[in-house]
Parts: sequence; structure tokens; C-alpha cells
Amino acid sequence: MIEYKGKDHGSAGWIIAENAFDARYLAKFETILCQGNGYLGLRATTEEAYTGERRNMFVAGTYNRFANQEVTELPNAADMVRLDISLNGVPFHLEKGTIHAYRRELDLRQGELRREILWEDEAGVQYKLCFRRFVSLRDRHLIGIRAEITPLNQDAEITIRSGINGQMANSGAQHFLEGERRIFDQELLQLTATTTESGIDFVHTCLHHLSKDGTRLNVSPAPAMERRKVLLTYKIKAEAGKRITLDKIATVHTSIDLEWSDHPVANLPALQETARDHVWQAAIKGFDQLFAESEQAWKRQWTDSRIEIRSKDPFDQLAVHFAQYHLLLMTPAHDSRFSVGAKGLTGEGYKGHVFWDTEIFIMPYFLYTDPQTARKLAEYRYHTLNGARKKAKDNGYRGAMYPWESAVTGEEETPEWGPVDVVAGTPTYIWTGKIEQHITADVAYGVWHYYQATGDQEYMDRYGYEIILETAAFWASRLEWSEEDQKYYICDVIGPDEYKEHVNNNAFTNYMAYWNITKAMECARQLMHAQSDVYSALDSKFALAERLMEWEEIVKLIYLPQPDPDTLLIPQDDTYLHKQVVDLEKYRNQEIVATILADYSMTQLSDIQVSKQADILVLFYLLEDWFSRETKAANWHYYEPKTLHDSSLSLSTHSILACDVNDVELAYQMFAKAARVDLGTNLHSCDEGIHAASIGGIWKAVVMGFGGVRSWEGTLRLNPKLPPAWESLSYPLSWRSERLQVKITRDKLLVERLTSGTGQLNLSIHGQSYLLKDRIVVDLEEVMPSE
Amino acid sequence: MIEYKGKDHGSAGWIIAENAFDARYLAKFETILCQGNGYLGLRATTEEAYTGERRNMFVAGTYNRFANQEVTELPNAADMVRLDISLNGVPFHLEKGTIHAYRRELDLRQGELRREILWEDEAGVQYKLCFRRFVSLRDRHLIGIRAEITPLNQDAEITIRSGINGQMANSGAQHFLEGERRIFDQELLQLTATTTESGIDFVHTCLHHLSKDGTRLNVSPAPAMERRKVLLTYKIKAEAGKRITLDKIATVHTSIDLEWSDHPVANLPALQETARDHVWQAAIKGFDQLFAESEQAWKRQWTDSRIEIRSKDPFDQLAVHFAQYHLLLMTPAHDSRFSVGAKGLTGEGYKGHVFWDTEIFIMPYFLYTDPQTARKLAEYRYHTLNGARKKAKDNGYRGAMYPWESAVTGEEETPEWGPVDVVAGTPTYIWTGKIEQHITADVAYGVWHYYQATGDQEYMDRYGYEIILETAAFWASRLEWSEEDQKYYICDVIGPDEYKEHVNNNAFTNYMAYWNITKAMECARQLMHAQSDVYSALDSKFALAERLMEWEEIVKLIYLPQPDPDTLLIPQDDTYLHKQVVDLEKYRNQEIVATILADYSMTQLSDIQVSKQADILVLFYLLEDWFSRETKAANWHYYEPKTLHDSSLSLSTHSILACDVNDVELAYQMFAKAARVDLGTNLHSCDEGIHAASIGGIWKAVVMGFGGVRSWEGTLRLNPKLPPAWESLSYPLSWRSERLQVKITRDKLLVERLTSGTGQLNLSIHGQSYLLKDRIVVDLEEVMPSE
Repeated sequence: MIEYKGKDHGSAGWIIAENAFDARYLAKFETILCQGNGYLGLRATTEEAYTGERRNMFVAGTYNRFANQEVTELPNAADMVRLDISLNGVPFHLEKGTIHAYRRELDLRQGELRREILWEDEAGVQYKLCFRRFVSLRDRHLIGIRAEITPLNQDAEITIRSGINGQMANSGAQHFLEGERRIFDQELLQLTATTTESGIDFVHTCLHHLSKDGTRLNVSPAPAMERRKVLLTYKIKAEAGKRITLDKIATVHTSIDLEWSDHPVANLPALQETARDHVWQAAIKGFDQLFAESEQAWKRQWTDSRIEIRSKDPFDQLAVHFAQYHLLLMTPAHDSRFSVGAKGLTGEGYKGHVFWDTEIFIMPYFLYTDPQTARKLAEYRYHTLNGARKKAKDNGYRGAMYPWESAVTGEEETPEWGPVDVVAGTPTYIWTGKIEQHITADVAYGVWHYYQATGDQEYMDRYGYEIILETAAFWASRLEWSEEDQKYYICDVIGPDEYKEHVNNNAFTNYMAYWNITKAMECARQLMHAQSDVYSALDSKFALAERLMEWEEIVKLIYLPQPDPDTLLIPQDDTYLHKQVVDLEKYRNQEIVATILADYSMTQLSDIQVSKQADILVLFYLLEDWFSRETKAANWHYYEPKTLHDSSLSLSTHSILACDVNDVELAYQMFAKAARVDLGTNLHSCDEGIHAASIGGIWKAVVMGFGGVRSWEGTLRLNPKLPPAWESLSYPLSWRSERLQVKITRDKLLVERLTSGTGQLNLSIHGQSYLLKDRIVVDLEEVMPSE
Repeated sequence: MIEYKGKDHGSAGWIIAENAFDARYLAKFETILCQGNGYLGLRATTEEAYTGERRNMFVAGTYNRFANQEVTELPNAADMVRLDISLNGVPFHLEKGTIHAYRRELDLRQGELRREILWEDEAGVQYKLCFRRFVSLRDRHLIGIRAEITPLNQDAEITIRSGINGQMANSGAQHFLEGERRIFDQELLQLTATTTESGIDFVHTCLHHLSKDGTRLNVSPAPAMERRKVLLTYKIKAEAGKRITLDKIATVHTSIDLEWSDHPVANLPALQETARDHVWQAAIKGFDQLFAESEQAWKRQWTDSRIEIRSKDPFDQLAVHFAQYHLLLMTPAHDSRFSVGAKGLTGEGYKGHVFWDTEIFIMPYFLYTDPQTARKLAEYRYHTLNGARKKAKDNGYRGAMYPWESAVTGEEETPEWGPVDVVAGTPTYIWTGKIEQHITADVAYGVWHYYQATGDQEYMDRYGYEIILETAAFWASRLEWSEEDQKYYICDVIGPDEYKEHVNNNAFTNYMAYWNITKAMECARQLMHAQSDVYSALDSKFALAERLMEWEEIVKLIYLPQPDPDTLLIPQDDTYLHKQVVDLEKYRNQEIVATILADYSMTQLSDIQVSKQADILVLFYLLEDWFSRETKAANWHYYEPKTLHDSSLSLSTHSILACDVNDVELAYQMFAKAARVDLGTNLHSCDEGIHAASIGGIWKAVVMGFGGVRSWEGTLRLNPKLPPAWESLSYPLSWRSERLQVKITRDKLLVERLTSGTGQLNLSIHGQSYLLKDRIVVDLEEVMPSE
């Protein structure tokens, strides 16, 4: 079904192909072959329709709430991809007739989706059908679609019905008012629809060109308007051997597009006219030129960012290309009002909401390759700071309490009800929005990480310090004093391991809260001495001096679970280690996610030593210098066997930690699994969208794990450890306004400085210090720790 | 594709069958094979899903408005019919594999839908699949579904996923909040959803029984809740030759059901519990008994109402059975708050709205066969009288101005925008809600017709007179005085012929307005003398004496277009006869409805002598004694060739009028066409639902046309004229509390009195008077007018 190689020379590592058609797996391929550009995401639905398809297009940040009882989500825009093709009066689709050849592939080099079919209908007429599609990287509003149909052995009458279908919904939830349908000059279609609650206008516009063997055809289509639809039907007589080509240029614009906030469009009619002009202009260029422009943009993108892996398994190279491709698609680099959804823009899953995934799993990619985009992500949390303040206040706390699921305001967007509780027969209550509170420290960590990697002082002065101080203020008010133990506890939370609800003193949460407060104290003291103007401004806003005094008192008393002197185990929470240990064989190494929930209710799961995902291990990754290598190893070996990796966030963390504890073989096994969360042979693992954090995790495992990149308090470290299968690894790296190119072979590390700076850059490589001017070459065998 | 006969003895005239599967025509069969009982209507969607299906279930009267910009419509309830069947892991549907035998049939005798398939999958495994389905006529909330699957030549693993799917929408418009999903005792599913604006709770409940060769299986299904869905998945190993049977008992209840207004359900939990009890109780009976109960109810129904036609063409008998079947389905006989939608409960078309179709085309069936139900329809217009008063007031008139499209309040529900205007590229503005005003007189006519046929004085005293007086008051205020001509005109209207918008003095409208005012005057005078209490009550409410004085003044001055002395033509409106005459050959006798709108905009259509449907001819039918036979014939021959019959209301009227002008051969041709509007070989004519008025028209053409039944001011007439193809026609007839049975053969008319009354009944038969005591036999050759 799924193939990882292309046909042409140079396509190795760049192609994901579906080599046979099976309607059961539509959703898988719709997700992994998704196209986009950070502004819009377009699932790879086929032109012809099938039961079970998920025909989705999302525009970043356009959240709407269907009803008061629901949370906001990204609405599914009108569909412009579907083509109803009839061949001699019979609707074309692949579940009838005979497929003589079939191949669909996404070419990551330029984001092109291609499909080529040799098909014979039930009357024996053979057709060649080719489809090409791109979402422009040059013009973020634009989609190009080309359909080529050639009857091979007989003449045929070809009917194509195409247009804009606004009947799309989000699994039944309709986010748009019916809106306006128009046909201009009998060829340009426009459908405008406005979201029901947030009032965002979506303007969908498209135009068709028809040709026969390259010569433009002037066919008058029959127009139709149905409910929420505007359509044209073309009828063409095609002689055997003649190629009929339909080019469709489509755009989507919304009233909240950044263009109009810079240069405001006065009103909806002006926006509609802008969109029409856009399509008229694009149509003059035509499909080929529009595609070439997008291809150029992709080429520049890859030149700047490409990671090269020479591995015995060519899949490794593909996986990292795939990750980089999807990281671009999922990230609204153009607009800091929005951030990255847990499924990117590839599916309805998680409703386009932003989780800790962004700071912990996705932002690092941009920190170290594209700091401008990382800054957008860091700014997003400032734009949503007031929402976080509101959440804190509503919950009786001070400062800023970030939402577990965030959309546009920063208010909590976690839905209340989830999948079935198998015991009660009711939906499961989702507690994360109430008590998975570590997100607040994760956001602060992201800010600090951004600062460490970029040195962007202007960001910190304007946004960053305020976030760190306000999140610390939240934690200070969140702590619970235990009179008995004379300690501050944090009770009734969910840690990263979501199979343990309502726990006390989750180690991850307590340490990160401690980190957040101490970091805020450190920042405040530093500002006091070095940047008194910034300090004064913050002090007058937040009474910093008072806060500092309070924090100094409490921070020493926060309970931080320590490694057991004998076993080195750190308890994940107050009760985990006392719970029942059960045989998890049935649920481990399963390709089907979360099967344990088919047997246990959440309440029952709480009583056994089973983890959904890395918990304390994430802490080792984030605060790595706070824990010894021995502690890390001991805990790795205790907790990993109890972890089902039912969260896609889990495997990459384990892979990195395995590198840290020097088990590179195991790290590679974990990486190999992580790289297959979406791309692997489980044909239903990503029906509702890619796993954005897991995709960030692929890059992390490669560059931060095997590549050994980490930054800790101002120093860039490179502790590379190639897995045995790899001959070399090469990646670009941004660090404090510098651009480096790192190349690791089995015995050498080469760091080149691409930016022409004057000073020298301090590097730590396997514990040794180096000064980089233009390039350095390190003999790894000399510096590597023995295993 | 479509077949009109069954296999068993006695099934002739009762079976509509689909003898081959073609997914292109799903909608046609979903409509004509629809099941229901006046409370709910369930389209005959297949258990397995296909692209292009319209999976609809409607409950009478449950209107909701999606958004302020839209009108109310009947919301599409959650689906409980779909079964996702996988055979050895491959989803079952008929576009793959090989169909060795296929037949689906609706048996009108008891409303059962049966489907039998012999199917071979792509691996060569053969299966017999049988599906049965009924909507109970005994228990209006209840649906029974049975699926039988037998692997024939190999063992097979059968997976069935079944439940309740609330993702359904009306062409993209979602009318329900997400609502509540529950599973009880791991087997009973319940999904409650509330309409977004009207706040009506829908409680969907279902339960499954599984058996193998008749022996109950205890299989634990896997439960699942998805968005707006609750589902169970059964996995069964079936040995070759063993029959696996899934019985699904499903119910729908709503918070506005009449039961709860008689015995109020205190709250939603109580309604949900009632629904669960209902299903538990039904499940104890089981599919077979539930079906038998419904079958009994259908048998009684047919015994009471069946019409028998002995014709050379057996289709004629089927057509009238089909009409009677659908007339029962479409009519909420249980609840006078609601009436009959233009597509019944069979599709989204016309949004479940009530038009003049009810009074003019549907009510006659009930008047003459089931007066209790006719009374419900007559009461409906009283329940909506305040809405009609509001419309009059909003438009600057007095009295009651009935809406062109009516739902539950009687306020105007006509949408503003329709299909594309081919010239402008915009949706067509729908003027009917503003200016198709004859509906107000049609409603009054329906009330009077009801009174004439039933003699129900109690209805008139409570409701009827008030409607007639208030509609007359509307017309009195609606008239426009022409100083020049010293006449009252009615300008800027649409008559029944909707291809002529904004016309002045549409003959139909002017005559009916005149009839309405004069009828009100007559009623008022009569009451004044005969029922002074009723008169006083109405007088104190409406100042009747004053109104009467005003009406006496104006009624004489209403302009009533007269037949031309030479041609006998009555102008349809002030300008029709002066418009251009064009060749309509291209558009006449087309099976595709309204093709002329593909070439002409509505504005252009206004300028040529083309009619969508009967206009003045309907007037001849309603006020038949006001026009001579010669006038009728002259106008028939002038207007019919200019009529495209693009409205399904047109043909039956023409058929009846052809009888009236003694052209029985032509009447039969028209009847034959009318009978095929839904049931004919045009496989897309009724995708959006049956044509309720056309179905009423089938009965009308049979009983009022060929059967010759008419009532005019208190006399029952029977002027039968059998078409040459018919040997005999027999029908029951209700008349003023009497039940008669009429049998017409080629030379005799037999009228039997079924009610045991004492008095005698006055009958007019071809202009001669008869007194009926028990039975009369008339020699038709003696009394028939020669042609």
C-alpha cells in the first residue's frame, strides 16, 4: 500500500507513494499526503468522492464555536477539490471497473501531489487519468489542480462537474452561515461564507481552464447553484487518444488574513473583489507558471533547511524530510496570532488546538533552524497571556495559568467530554483542561529556551520576562502548604502521563513549577542589575519586589521528590510506586493506539503502574543537568517497561533519553518507531490528522538525540552519537544569530559557520570546549565517552 | 431498473421493485420506497453507505431554523439505519465484488422494504444477504430492521458496526446541538439531541439482537462514542451455510410529541427513560411480532380505503395504491398542529413546508375517504391563523394573509433565494412568499370544501367561519381601486403559473378573491339568521356588520376577466395574451424538469406565452359551475400547448379538466403521465422527495376525474367516465358521515351505502338526481352524455 521511494533519479528519500487503491485507507493517505503552507492545510482527498473520505481544508486561526456547549475549533472550509467526473454517463470512481495501474505520490521536494491511473470501465473503455495538485508556497491563498483524462481505445463523452461546495462540516458541526454564491462571466465561481460565532468571512474563489491536447477549449459550462454550492458542469467529446485537461485555480481568503490587518480591506465586497482579482491574475499565469513559482519557493526552503542522513535504511532520510515538510505545513509562520495545532492543519483531531506540544516538541525545530518562525510561536503565548490571566483568576489563582488547549484568546478550550467509558456507558470526562497544569511551566520553558537559543533580548524585554514572571506568580499561588510536612505540595493534577489523573506531587509538575519560580527570580534579579528600565516597568506593573520576597520564602519549601538512595528511582507521583504492577504485554508494541482503554476505565487505570507516555523522562530532557546520568538510566529502565507509548509524544523523548544514557542502539529502535507513528504501515494511525508533536519529535530525535544538540544556559552543546546504521548526518543549525552547518560521520564532527561573523562561538562537544571561527573538525573517537 | 410487479400470487399492483443496483439512482429509490406513518418518514437508504445517498429521517412538525438568515425546515434526525458490515475485513458494498442476484422491493400491502442479494466478494466468498425494514403503523415511534447474512461457500468473519449517528445534517445545515450519548447495559444505545433554535429534544434509542440460524447469540459488542455518534461493533464467526441475523429495534421520540402534551413528561430525563422503556418492551416482543402488529394495522387500512382499478395496464392499479400509501405516509393524521409538506416526509425538498398543495391537491383524498384526518388538516390552518394575521399586518393589510410556505406558526417561511439565474450568475430571488397570494383564498376554499363534504358544523363554528371571514377581510383590504376603470384590481401577483411573476389581475387570483369575499358574506348572512350565538361571537370579535357593509360595496366592483365573446378565452392576466408565442417543442414532454430555466432567466420567461402549470384551469376545477363547458374547452386547448407541466401539480388538473370537457382518452394520457411523475422511469425526478401534490393528484384524477366525484354546495355528484383501458373502478367514498362504496364498470354504476343510516342521500349522476338508501345501480349508457 505505502511505498517510500520514487521512480526518478534523485527522488530517493523524497517520495511517499500509495501504490494501490483501497478505499479503507483513504484517511491515512489524506493525512500523510496532506498539502499546505502554514496558512492553509488541504487533506489529500481524491478528486472523486468516496464514502469514508474526510474532505477537509483548514485555514490557520479561523476558530469558531458551533454552540455554547462546545469549544472552538478550526472550521472545515468549503471544498474545491472534488470533481465529479462522468465517463460516457457513468460516474468515475475506482471501486468499479478495472484498475490496470495506479500510483499516487507526494513529492516532498516541491509539495506536489500526483496521481496516475490506467482504468477500464465496465464497458471496456480504457482511460488514462492523471491528477496533479499543489498548494502554493509562494502565494499562500492559492491551490492549483490539474486533471487530465485521455480515453485510450474509444471516443468518450467526458462530463466534469466542479465548483465550490460549502456543505462541508466538522463531523456534522456546521460552522458557516449559508453565505453568498456567485458566478461571474459564466466562469469564475465565488462562494462566501461567514462563521456563525466568530464572524470570520471565508471567500472561496475558483476558475477553470479546459484544453484538448494543449489547445484551449471554449466549452460553455452549465451553471448550477444548490444549497451552499455553486457549480459548473462541462461536457466534452474526447476522441480516442486525445487528452482533455481541466485546470482549476482556486483561492481562499478570510477577513482575518494578516494582509487586511496591515492594509485593511474596507468591507466584504472589497475582499470578494480582491479575491476575484487574485484569481483572474493567477489564471493569466496559468497552472504551469503558478506551479513553477511554488516549486522555486520549496527549493529555496530545502536549500536552507535540509537534513541529510546516510543510513543503511533509506527510510530514515525520508522520515526526516517528511518531518520537515509537515513542520512547515503545520506552522503559521506568517502570523503570530496563531500557533501549531496538535494535528497541524491536517485533520479535525484536537480541533486545531494548541497544546504543550508546541513548546516542547515543535518549537525546538524552529529555534535551531528558523528563529524568525520560533519567535512567532513565542509571541503567540504573549498574545494569549490575558486569556491565561483570566483562567488563573477564574480558578482563584494569581498570574497566568495557561490553558491546556489553546486557540485564539488563550482561554481554556479543552472539551469536557471524550470517548466512551466502557464501564459506565457514558462519555469520559476530560480532566486535562482543569488539572493538567504543567502547561503553564512548559510555556515559560519555551520562552526561556527561545531566549537561550536566539539571544533575542528585544523579545524578552517586550514579551518574554512578563510571561516568565506571570507564570511564576501562578505557581506561587498554586502551591499548597502542608502543615504536617512543612512543605509546599501540588495536589490533584495530571502530569504528562495522562493515565494517572488526580495525583499529588507529580514529579514533573513540581520540578517544573520550581524551575519556573526560580527562573523568574533569576530574571528579576538580573534585570534589577543590568536593565533597570525594564525592571522598573515590570515592577510597577507587578510589584516585583514584593513578589521576589514572597518567592524567596516559598521556593525553598517546594517539595521536590528525590531519587531513592538505593534504587535512584524518583516517584512519578505520591502513589505511583505503590500501585499494582500488571502484565502489559497485551498492550505493548501494539500498532493500535490506546487499546487498554477498551478494557479499563480511566478510574481503573489509575490503580495500576501503567503510563501512557514518558513523564519523568521528559523532565530529564528539559532539566537535563539537574539529574545524574545514573538517575536517568535507573528511571528509564523502571518506567519504560510500564509505558504503553499510547501518546505519540512518548517515543521520541525515550529515544533522546536513550542517547543521553548512551544506549544508541535502543535510541535508534525508538527513533525508528517514532518515525513510523504517521508514516508507518498502521493504516489507521493518523486518520484524524498527523501527530504534530511526534513529527517534531522525529527532528528532535535526529538532531537533539543523535545530533546531540542541546543548549543549556547560554552554551551550545553538540554531543553527537550516530546509530550504527548511519554513515553520516548533516544538518543546519541556527544559534544566536549564527547559522552553522554540522556534519557528523562515524569518526568526525565538522562544524562550519555559514554566517560571516567576526567573533568566536563557544561550543561544548562531549564535555570539551571549542572555539568556532569558520570551521572546526573534531575527531569523535578522541572525545566520545566509551559505552 | 424499476419494476412494478412482485413474485408471489396476489402481489400484482402492490410491489415497486428495484431489480438491479445502480448507485446513480439511489435517491430515486430512497424516495419512492420511503417508509413512514405520518409521524416519521424514513428514506429507503441502504444499510451500507454510498456516495450520493441522502440518508434522511424526518419527524413531522419538528421545524428548526439553522440561522436567522434562513427559514425553518424539518431537521434531518440521527440515522439508525446504516450498518457498516465487513466481511472478512472488507467493507461490504455493491460497487465492489460481483452481484449474482439483486432485488429490492417495497410491498405496499404492509409497507415492508425487502432486499435480497447474492453477492461474491473479490476473494470468491459468496454471501446471501437479506434486509427487511418497516416503520410501524401500529407504534409510530418504532422502526424495525433485520439484516441476515449467510456465507455460502466458506466460513467468514462478519463485523457489524451499528448504532446512532447524529452527524446528519440538511445539506450541510446542522440543526442539532451535539447532545447526549449513552450506552445502557452494554446493549441499549441512546442519543439525545436538541434542535438549536426551536429547542425540540429528539431522543433516539435502539437495541440489537443477534442470532445464528435462529438461536440467540451472546456476543459482547465493542462500544464506541465518536462525535455525535454512539456505536456498537459486533464480531461474529459464521460457518458456511449458517445464517447470522441482526435485529435492530429503533425508536425516535421528541419533546413535542402529542403524548407529552396530553400527559406531560416532566423533563428530559423522564422522556429518555420513557424511550428506553419503550425499546426494552418492544425488544421483548421482538422483530417478528412487532412487524406482525404493523402488518395488521396496514391490512385494516387497506380494507377501509382501497381503490380497485381493473385496467389493461396493471400500472394504473399500482399507481393508485402507491398514491394511497404515500398519502398516508405524508400526513400527520395524529396531530393537527402540523400539516403535509410539499415532499411529505420523504426528502429535504421544500424544507417540509406546507403549500396550497394541501388544500387543493391532498385534502380532497381525506375529505372523501378519511374525514377525521381531513379535519386535522383543516384545524391546522386555524392553529396558524395568528401567523397569517401577522403576515397581513406586516404587509399593511387586514384579516389573515396565509403564508405561501407554512410551517408551525403560520408565518411566512418561503426562502428568499433559489437556483441560479443563468444570466446574472446570482441566485434567483423567490417572489412567491411576497406575491403568490392566492394561497389565502385556497385555504378558505379548503375550509369550505371540508364543510361541504363533511357537514361538520362544529368545526365551522369553532374554526371554519373565522378563517373564511378573516381571509375575506384580507382580500377586501388587498384590492386596489382603479379610478380610471372604476374597478378593483389585484396587481403585482403570481398566479398558479409561476413563470409569470408580477402580473396584474391574474384571473385565478381575482376570481378566488371574489369567491372568498362572497362566501364570507354568505356565511355571515346565514349565521345571522340561523346561528345567532355564533354570529354574535364573531360580530363582537370582527365587527361583522361593518365588514358586511363594506364587502357589499366592493364585491360588485372586483374585476373578473370574462371570456372573450368570440374565442371564449379568459386572459390569464392583463398581459399574457399579448406576449410573444415561441416554439416550446424543446421543453415539452421532457422528462427533465424545468429545462427552460437553463436557457431563460425568470425575467426573460415573463415575456413569452409559456406556463409552468395549469393556472386558469385550476380555477375551472375549483369553481366549476361558474364556467361553461365550452369556455373550459376553449381555454384548455389554448393554454395546454403553452404549458410545460414543469410543476407536478399540473398534469392531474389537466386530466380532470379533460374529463370535464369529455376527452377521456386525453384525460387518460394525462393521468398516465401524472402517475409517473415519481414512479416513472425518469430516475432523477424525485431525488429530493416525492411530489405530494402530484400524488394527491393521482387519486384526484382517478376518483374526481374518471370517478366523477365532486361536491358543490351540498350535493354529491358522481359523473363517472371510465377511460377505454379500464374495465372497472371501485372506490370507497365518505360523504357527510356516510360511507359509500362506488363501483363503476363500463356500463354500470353501483353505489352501496356502508353506513346504516335511516335517511336517504341525494346524489347527482350525470345531471340526474337519485336517492340512495342502501344501494343504487345506474345504467351508465342511459345517463352518459354523448361525446
